[in-house]
Amino acid sequence: MTRCTDFTHDPAARSWVGSANGHGDFPVQNLPLGIFAPPSGPPRGGVAIGSEILDIAAIAALLPDDARGVAPLADRATLNDLLGVGNDALRALRHGLFRLLTDPASEEAVRPALHSMTRCSLHLPAHVGDYTDFYTGIHHAENVGKLLRPDSPLLPNYKYVPIGYHGRASSIRLSGEDVIRPNGQTLPPGTQTPIFGPSKRVDHELEMAIWVGRGNALGQPIPIAGAREHIAGLSILNDWSARDIQAWEYQPLGPFLAKNFHSSVSPWIVTMDALAPYRVAQPPRPKGDPAPLPYLLDPADQESGALDVTMEVHLSTARMRAEDRPPHRLSCSSMTAMYWTAAQLITHHSVNGCNLAPGDLLGTGTLSGASDESKACLLELTQGGREPLHLPGGESRAFLEDGDEIIITAFAEAPGFARIGFGECRARIAPAPGLEP
Amino acid sequence: MTRCTDFTHDPAARSWVGSANGHGDFPVQNLPLGIFAPPSGPPRGGVAIGSEILDIAAIAALLPDDARGVAPLADRATLNDLLGVGNDALRALRHGLFRLLTDPASEEAVRPALHSMTRCSLHLPAHVGDYTDFYTGIHHAENVGKLLRPDSPLLPNYKYVPIGYHGRASSIRLSGEDVIRPNGQTLPPGTQTPIFGPSKRVDHELEMAIWVGRGNALGQPIPIAGAREHIAGLSILNDWSARDIQAWEYQPLGPFLAKNFHSSVSPWIVTMDALAPYRVAQPPRPKGDPAPLPYLLDPADQESGALDVTMEVHLSTARMRAEDRPPHRLSCSSMTAMYWTAAQLITHHSVNGCNLAPGDLLGTGTLSGASDESKACLLELTQGGREPLHLPGGESRAFLEDGDEIIITAFAEAPGFARIGFGECRARIAPAPGLEP
Repeated sequence: MTRCTDFTHDPAARSWVGSANGHGDFPVQNLPLGIFAPPSGPPRGGVAIGSEILDIAAIAALLPDDARGVAPLADRATLNDLLGVGNDALRALRHGLFRLLTDPASEEAVRPALHSMTRCSLHLPAHVGDYTDFYTGIHHAENVGKLLRPDSPLLPNYKYVPIGYHGRASSIRLSGEDVIRPNGQTLPPGTQTPIFGPSKRVDHELEMAIWVGRGNALGQPIPIAGAREHIAGLSILNDWSARDIQAWEYQPLGPFLAKNFHSSVSPWIVTMDALAPYRVAQPPRPKGDPAPLPYLLDPADQESGALDVTMEVHLSTARMRAEDRPPHRLSCSSMTAMYWTAAQLITHHSVNGCNLAPGDLLGTGTLSGASDESKACLLELTQGGREPLHLPGGESRAFLEDGDEIIITAFAEAPGFARIGFGECRARIAPAPGLEP
Repeated sequence: MTRCTDFTHDPAARSWVGSANGHGDFPVQNLPLGIFAPPSGPPRGGVAIGSEILDIAAIAALLPDDARGVAPLADRATLNDLLGVGNDALRALRHGLFRLLTDPASEEAVRPALHSMTRCSLHLPAHVGDYTDFYTGIHHAENVGKLLRPDSPLLPNYKYVPIGYHGRASSIRLSGEDVIRPNGQTLPPGTQTPIFGPSKRVDHELEMAIWVGRGNALGQPIPIAGAREHIAGLSILNDWSARDIQAWEYQPLGPFLAKNFHSSVSPWIVTMDALAPYRVAQPPRPKGDPAPLPYLLDPADQESGALDVTMEVHLSTARMRAEDRPPHRLSCSSMTAMYWTAAQLITHHSVNGCNLAPGDLLGTGTLSGASDESKACLLELTQGGREPLHLPGGESRAFLEDGDEIIITAFAEAPGFARIGFGECRARIAPAPGLEP
């Protein structure tokens, strides 16, 4: 298996930043990229290390030659330029940062560039030029398909085409920002005439976000063999959905207002290098499924193009918080639920010549697994709302109510390697605005 | 009818720029906005006047107070900031520019800021943050629907929901840039297994592009009564489509690779003020059609929210050019084919809180009228390719071949007013790239 691990993945490595050692998300083996603003100063690029953030551009002069050139690209309000340098350069930066943060001799020089995370504001890591949402969770596609088309849940193209559609870039927001319940048209069951008002079926969707690194020019597809080099890293994504609006609007051109009111993304980009130890073979396709067409098939990608990342979804209601109850776990799933690898998504997206750019975001689609506990949205967990969930404390939920908060976490671990995490993607539902007269 | 015309719409007005007088597209009554680069110098904002371009920022000091503040916003490589000031400020700019270009006393001071259009390069007028394509051409929707679903061509939501979907912003290109034929998966008729290769059914789609001016904050819908103020102006749009890729991929999430390989837009934004004389009442809905839901209904919009803009599509094949034949007219249609007004699209798009930004682009959808000659794409003109068009010179076409060029023009005229035009949106099909081994 081509994991391509190196000294930065040594589980015994320790940082002189004490909070990093044993940190569940951000040990020195992770070094995820993000945009932060210290208490006084504009937003800029940093890496999370334990409970602190290292200002990358501030320590550029301390880096070796091969990383010193790119570090100043972090001195911007977005990481687009840094992500665009490609993974070789990002690896050199990772190596340089790792050495500085593990070598006690560097502490004195580096320490002034460290900021306590709790005293900083975090920002969207990149300006998202285009956002594409895929549909790689085959169990999700089957579960949702069953609700809509009991006799043919999966359409004939699903196992050939990495199905995806364009989403809205402008409404992608950082974890923590409230999600305003959307108003819209819905068709009440058993009627023929739509009504207008707040959505009654707001749902979360557990996804991972794939950040595009190096882009491609219009008309120049990205071959599958090199596609991995165009992926900078991953964050957690919650693709909020209004199921009642979706059911009424989505034919024939796909989801629109049911999705574009808000998408939440976690602040830290866990790089492909950080994820190297957790690469696994793409799970074999079920017997009888067709092989991917040749343009999507690369032996190395099949051998190590999947990622063993575990994701958990928790719900915290207003009453749970008032009663000091902990959030309730809704589901636990894995990125191995993806029917297509991330590299296959990049190649398929560009095979017609479509141009991707640094900072573009690809959603994996809702990553439900085969088990009930891995169902990754309420639509699946409640059988389309027909079987509400019973929550500790006596509450129940078919879909989300105002004040409900969804918290998604993710982490990766593997024998012989450290555990690294993604932090969290968290947001709360706020009431719909009043209707205009 | 609330046309809101003023002295800038006086058909008798003449400019000291001689080429403007009687110009089919750019008389002084038009003054469309665009981005140009003179032979030496970076891209910047200008207005087309006859066969010349006026550098807006260069004459800022000559403008009256209310326009002098915004003119420097044209000194950028995109018009986003200028479009974002809103239509009142754009109107003040229009008034100031009109006075300078009609007053012979201004010629000496203004002349140095004029550039011959043929010596300049033109650029995309704005950075498109998000691109949304609507489906307002009801005849197109019916014609396409008949090909797919002969018994129910229009889905039940069509007359209630302004159907739209998100397109790809990164592949929007200026008129003139070649369109590379896309490779992709298609399902040959009568088979069950897709093949991969160049699309055999590349098509044009005649649309108009609506440029968003002032935006809205996430969670703050734009009421219908004020929606017109969020539209900066219009250009011509060709939404290139690969019908064979589309047919195989589009279920259940809508068009993706069939559309995102290229969209062409004309260089000049004809402002809403320039279009004021050509406003007409929204054509009454056919008997039996439901009224729009209240959030989409505004008396002023119904009374003057449609636009009487005529559009023509011409095809020029490589052989026509070799034999010095003129382009062949494929269709002639009108923006009055829109089932929804531009203001209704703005309001619907934002009604769930989705945020629009200056420079966002909304496509109208393919604007076929009721007649055969107004069918606005080859899919309709050739009955899904079954009845190829016979062209002068003995050629025929079901879909576009390499070397074919589509030229779309548009203009508006009304009794008592000048004719103004949009220039042209033109692009040629280039061969697909070779397939990777």
